[in-house]
Amino acid sequence: MQVRPIWWAKGAVMILDQRLLPWKRVYLKCTRYQQVARAIKNMAIRGAPAIGIAAAMGVALGVYNLKSNRNLEGNFDKICQTIIQTRPTARNLFWAIERMKKVFLRHKKKSLSELKQILAKEAQIILEEDVATNRQIGYHGKNLIKMGMTVLTHCNAGALATGGYGTALGVIRAAWEEGMRFQVIADETRPYLQGARLTAWELQQEGIPVTVITDSIAGYLMAQGKVDLIIVGADRIAANGDTANKIGTYTLAVLAKNHGIPFYVAAPFSTFDVNISDGCYIPVEERRGKEVIFIGKKRICPEGVNALYYAFDVTPAEYITGIITEKGIITPPYKEKIKKLK
Amino acid sequence: MQVRPIWWAKGAVMILDQRLLPWKRVYLKCTRYQQVARAIKNMAIRGAPAIGIAAAMGVALGVYNLKSNRNLEGNFDKICQTIIQTRPTARNLFWAIERMKKVFLRHKKKSLSELKQILAKEAQIILEEDVATNRQIGYHGKNLIKMGMTVLTHCNAGALATGGYGTALGVIRAAWEEGMRFQVIADETRPYLQGARLTAWELQQEGIPVTVITDSIAGYLMAQGKVDLIIVGADRIAANGDTANKIGTYTLAVLAKNHGIPFYVAAPFSTFDVNISDGCYIPVEERRGKEVIFIGKKRICPEGVNALYYAFDVTPAEYITGIITEKGIITPPYKEKIKKLK
Repeated sequence: MQVRPIWWAKGAVMILDQRLLPWKRVYLKCTRYQQVARAIKNMAIRGAPAIGIAAAMGVALGVYNLKSNRNLEGNFDKICQTIIQTRPTARNLFWAIERMKKVFLRHKKKSLSELKQILAKEAQIILEEDVATNRQIGYHGKNLIKMGMTVLTHCNAGALATGGYGTALGVIRAAWEEGMRFQVIADETRPYLQGARLTAWELQQEGIPVTVITDSIAGYLMAQGKVDLIIVGADRIAANGDTANKIGTYTLAVLAKNHGIPFYVAAPFSTFDVNISDGCYIPVEERRGKEVIFIGKKRICPEGVNALYYAFDVTPAEYITGIITEKGIITPPYKEKIKKLK
Repeated sequence: MQVRPIWWAKGAVMILDQRLLPWKRVYLKCTRYQQVARAIKNMAIRGAPAIGIAAAMGVALGVYNLKSNRNLEGNFDKICQTIIQTRPTARNLFWAIERMKKVFLRHKKKSLSELKQILAKEAQIILEEDVATNRQIGYHGKNLIKMGMTVLTHCNAGALATGGYGTALGVIRAAWEEGMRFQVIADETRPYLQGARLTAWELQQEGIPVTVITDSIAGYLMAQGKVDLIIVGADRIAANGDTANKIGTYTLAVLAKNHGIPFYVAAPFSTFDVNISDGCYIPVEERRGKEVIFIGKKRICPEGVNALYYAFDVTPAEYITGIITEKGIITPPYKEKIKKLK
């Protein structure tokens, strides 16, 4: 049974607290939209598609709790603004809010109770579509993985990062379901350890062989010819294919090019931001150094020493072999092909 | 006052337990050579030059505890063998044992009490020479660091990794002592966190501005033009300049080349192994995956998931801008120059 990171439960948004995985399975019951916003900000839920779903459900929840439709538009905008301000990089967050806004504007004249139902429904459709989209990504990407390969992935682009199934891990799952047998190397992905905690956990549950490495080992494995393929997720993809993803992705891409290893990004079209011409305009979140300095409650540096924590980096399109989407694999030149498919 | 990682205390080897830094300053009093071997193996003391000094002192301690010179050579070999088997990569370990063996062979006919004194003296000379050597490395390398630069270093090649002063950090210290002002970025260096724990601590004590990053951020900083110079230490350097150093060094070197950033190795000649023609023959230690899976007592992966832990990697000479030694900076072509200077 695959894990469900988020769902709508009639007037509440249920969120699996990923900060506690794999040790504890705790669900946050959010009954106010501010709680959803907080869960996004503090990374109880993370991963671009999952953030998009959470944002949509947060909007639906905000409207659900309105007592009357006095100042309806003002209240709606306030809800959206609160959620928008949680995290700056993942495109899906903005995409989901825009989609909810369109539905809101179309139906705002309806009775409040009807509007509530329509928005809650839309948020749930976004979730369901995301799972279907991931399966399509898996379908299009699965043939990249051949028997006996070693596939490296970074961070967690799995069921936990999406509505379910996953993008990069969706490709891996789809290949495994086809009977392909291979092994996966999961970068631990400091500082939040999504690879060690989440990816290893998801793959273990599927019975897919997985080995965790520290992020700094990947290069040496590539030099020894021990990595055949790299697949990662994405948080935002610019019109030219430049891709923001979890910090460390750019390093993997440079190493992959240096060693002639195919480097693929797996992402739905909701991650594409064609209004941004290239990666240098993607806002990269800088989080508090404290999240690097403490591992759990343990301080790893002397007091008074600062740390720097960019949550993402941007990989120029020239390092990317292909982008696996629900409509097929896009290969260079990206600009025209993205425009055509979008 | 600089920290002393190791010293000889008349019949005991005192070792600062680096696993507990920066939280606790605990000294291990080793009164048997097996304890010294254990301290090397379990990384209470680490860093190639410091391992060399510990090995020499371990040998001196083993002989110091002999009750008679019955089977003297057999006992000596047993001591050396025990120490040799602790860690395979650092050249200095073998270099120090060979040096102690030469002294032993030269003086083995002397009285046991004289021999004990001679060997203890030699081990202390190795330590003193190492500090002097580091100062020479600092002297030769310091002009590489210019006003306002950002210097990145990996792991800990400081006072703690040597007899004192440091190799890569020796260069940084020497530049700072000259009045140069700059900042240092320290890779945290998973899994053992030498950068976050040890390098940050040493630099903080000197008042040199230091910022800790996760290992995966370095590449993105380079892409943004935020790194001017990289200096790392070394565990073993082959005849052609190929360099084994802490895991992650190779990745930095590839990134440095990709971004046109100068990449220097700082190491004494005791780290060179001219019997090894190139890096592919350097034995790279693989440590237990458990050291990746647990951070302190906290398990970071689900139970049953394996981890891989190469303690070192090998950087081909073509990625190295120069090797800073006590006799000056060696630049390519390395082979002839190393041969001439050695």
